[in-house]
Amino acid sequence: MKQVKIGIIGFGTVGAGVADCLLKNGALIAARTGIEPVLAGIADLDVTTDRGVKLPPGLLTADVGRILDNPEIDIVVELVGGTTVAKDFILRAFRAGKTVVTANKALLAKCGAEVFAAAEKSGADLGYEASVGGGIPIIKALREGLAGDRIRSLVGILNGTCNYILTRMENESASFDDILQAAQAAGYAEANPALDIDGFDTAHKAAILASLAFGEWFRPEQMAVEGIRGLALQDIQYAAALGYRIKLLAVIKEAEGKVQLRVHPALIPTRSLLGHVSGVFNAIFVRGEPVGDTLYYGRGAGRDATASAVVADIIDAGLNLAHGCRGRLPAFRPHTGCAGVLPASECRSRYYLRLQVSDRPGVLALIAGVFGDSNISIASVTQKEADSAVVPLVILTHEAREADMQKALADLRGRPEVAEKPILLRIEDLP
Amino acid sequence: MKQVKIGIIGFGTVGAGVADCLLKNGALIAARTGIEPVLAGIADLDVTTDRGVKLPPGLLTADVGRILDNPEIDIVVELVGGTTVAKDFILRAFRAGKTVVTANKALLAKCGAEVFAAAEKSGADLGYEASVGGGIPIIKALREGLAGDRIRSLVGILNGTCNYILTRMENESASFDDILQAAQAAGYAEANPALDIDGFDTAHKAAILASLAFGEWFRPEQMAVEGIRGLALQDIQYAAALGYRIKLLAVIKEAEGKVQLRVHPALIPTRSLLGHVSGVFNAIFVRGEPVGDTLYYGRGAGRDATASAVVADIIDAGLNLAHGCRGRLPAFRPHTGCAGVLPASECRSRYYLRLQVSDRPGVLALIAGVFGDSNISIASVTQKEADSAVVPLVILTHEAREADMQKALADLRGRPEVAEKPILLRIEDLP
Repeated sequence: MKQVKIGIIGFGTVGAGVADCLLKNGALIAARTGIEPVLAGIADLDVTTDRGVKLPPGLLTADVGRILDNPEIDIVVELVGGTTVAKDFILRAFRAGKTVVTANKALLAKCGAEVFAAAEKSGADLGYEASVGGGIPIIKALREGLAGDRIRSLVGILNGTCNYILTRMENESASFDDILQAAQAAGYAEANPALDIDGFDTAHKAAILASLAFGEWFRPEQMAVEGIRGLALQDIQYAAALGYRIKLLAVIKEAEGKVQLRVHPALIPTRSLLGHVSGVFNAIFVRGEPVGDTLYYGRGAGRDATASAVVADIIDAGLNLAHGCRGRLPAFRPHTGCAGVLPASECRSRYYLRLQVSDRPGVLALIAGVFGDSNISIASVTQKEADSAVVPLVILTHEAREADMQKALADLRGRPEVAEKPILLRIEDLP
Repeated sequence: MKQVKIGIIGFGTVGAGVADCLLKNGALIAARTGIEPVLAGIADLDVTTDRGVKLPPGLLTADVGRILDNPEIDIVVELVGGTTVAKDFILRAFRAGKTVVTANKALLAKCGAEVFAAAEKSGADLGYEASVGGGIPIIKALREGLAGDRIRSLVGILNGTCNYILTRMENESASFDDILQAAQAAGYAEANPALDIDGFDTAHKAAILASLAFGEWFRPEQMAVEGIRGLALQDIQYAAALGYRIKLLAVIKEAEGKVQLRVHPALIPTRSLLGHVSGVFNAIFVRGEPVGDTLYYGRGAGRDATASAVVADIIDAGLNLAHGCRGRLPAFRPHTGCAGVLPASECRSRYYLRLQVSDRPGVLALIAGVFGDSNISIASVTQKEADSAVVPLVILTHEAREADMQKALADLRGRPEVAEKPILLRIEDLP
């Protein structure tokens, strides 16, 4: 039985979960895999807070050097987060020839190329299953389970906080602001929720998935990103009446030899599988050739689910150490999948549009004319009744080009018959 | 770039799919993984039927020896099926030191111990991702993605033919016999459909999943198996009215230190994720610790989805060959998960029961009394209106022991007030 010695940097929520899992399931892991994971050290600046895990004495230290400079430690687990010291720790670990496991999506999305290059140079493995989709083994599915497939599209619900907010808004007919406050009080949203609700966390994860699927390291800046901040309950309800549910999606699709990369709230069919992903859960729909449609679902964050993914990476890396095959499957290997990112203006999708229009003759004809002039074909129109001179008009379109839609919107915005800024959402027709 | 030479035995539907995938995506696979899969030979008794794949000349042979005795071939892909010659081919391949990839669930379920022992003795790898869930990488998820998790339960829709029949019965309000005939005509059901509709195919797959999850090689004979043959449309409709959908499930659950192993049709909540798995698709719900609830969805059978799984196994095995780490993760490794199978009579679940009873005073009290005497608590009762002296009575129970339910049924069967054999189905409450 080969022992694999593990050092954890960062003893916060996830760090405690990883330690707990290794201590509780260590014997089971050894029996299953033939390697014995040994928790050899945990470093954190805070060595006093009780994390609810009973550690063997002498394991916890404030000195990160006792992990990084310890020649006995094989695998360094980076759970500090962020893009500054975390990167330094990872690069130091590689220089010391150690394998690295991380859950740090922000770091990979921003500095992936640098981190992967360091891994390759050192010959060590880098595991990052926990960076996307929490406990869902989606990185493994893309790198290995679908290794023989040409990926055509991925559509994911990748942020538990946003999905929790959207689920509660719908279930409780409540406003975005009310539910955001409740989510913050319940610990499901950060005091500064921007990273989640403005879509950046989803974009970080989408960049990783897109890179694995299409073989070129994409950066979040290449992505059109919209979050759910200020989404109106009204639109959730109108969407529901039309058979749709609104979710914050990462949409990654091959189109015309390029890749569409978008993060935005979108209407998806209520009856679709992704439409049934509620609360803090995540799911990723992957369409490949030859596999067809597949979907992966689980908890997208939290102590335990994330720990499961980190420990799976530890085991994978430990097997490579035990069998002398480090670098068996490099952390990221560029491959020819496509010819770059399709400009946002060239992306195509169906659209949901809500206009506040004057309730008088000729307005609908005028608006229909604007769409027609922009090459946009209308699929359905619903004029809602209202007790005012201004009424909501909900339009669903057939597939159209983003640039054409923006042209139509610019035209509409200048019209006196259109009272407020139009609300524009995309529609993704999923099975 | 390490070349990996592949020989396929069996050039039927799946064999053609695998060849097609290797030919079409070979360059992509090489770029992604650093190994170049080379199709070196295909053996089939039938070398004349056009399989729709343009093979390089000289590849197809009727002589299986040109695969098994060819020292150049690294990986033998067994796609013959069945438990006779297929086993001989696999054992011969192992004796020749070759890696084996197979989609043969019947063989693994029946002779898994023997096949795994041969793999271990030879030191070669054995891949069997395609044996369960078609293109869904569920074997990889259990062996690797959740390698650090203690599995608590698996519930799966594992047979596409049954799910197709049940979906069409519900959508078209049609009888089992009518849809079975239509499915046979459309090629979705075999001329002899027993393996599928009587639950044995699901049992084979369930045995493999249970073994991986709980670390002991279970045999299908240890499982209580009921299929969907003759399922009444009436019960699908009554279930729908109560908020349930009927699916053929494999239920694998830890209970009282043992494992429940059951295959049967069951009511699951219409709003659950598994409830939305329609047509020929499969899905597996896995609950583990620490990961929590996860789900994996995709096409459960067919040329292309199965080919995706076979090719993923080829790549995995090829990486082990290229990096000199054959046996990195043995095909099956016994581990202490539980203390054997819980006897069917001790299994617990909720129940759906339909009785045809006399429409007169006192009957409901009598039946309620029978249940009470057997320690079964009733959750709901619906008496359907009917134009006859005999009316359907639909009862949902709280969780009860199978032995208690069978005792109550035996009691009811003897009563003159109960007109026909009661219909008994289980209920699985899934998220």
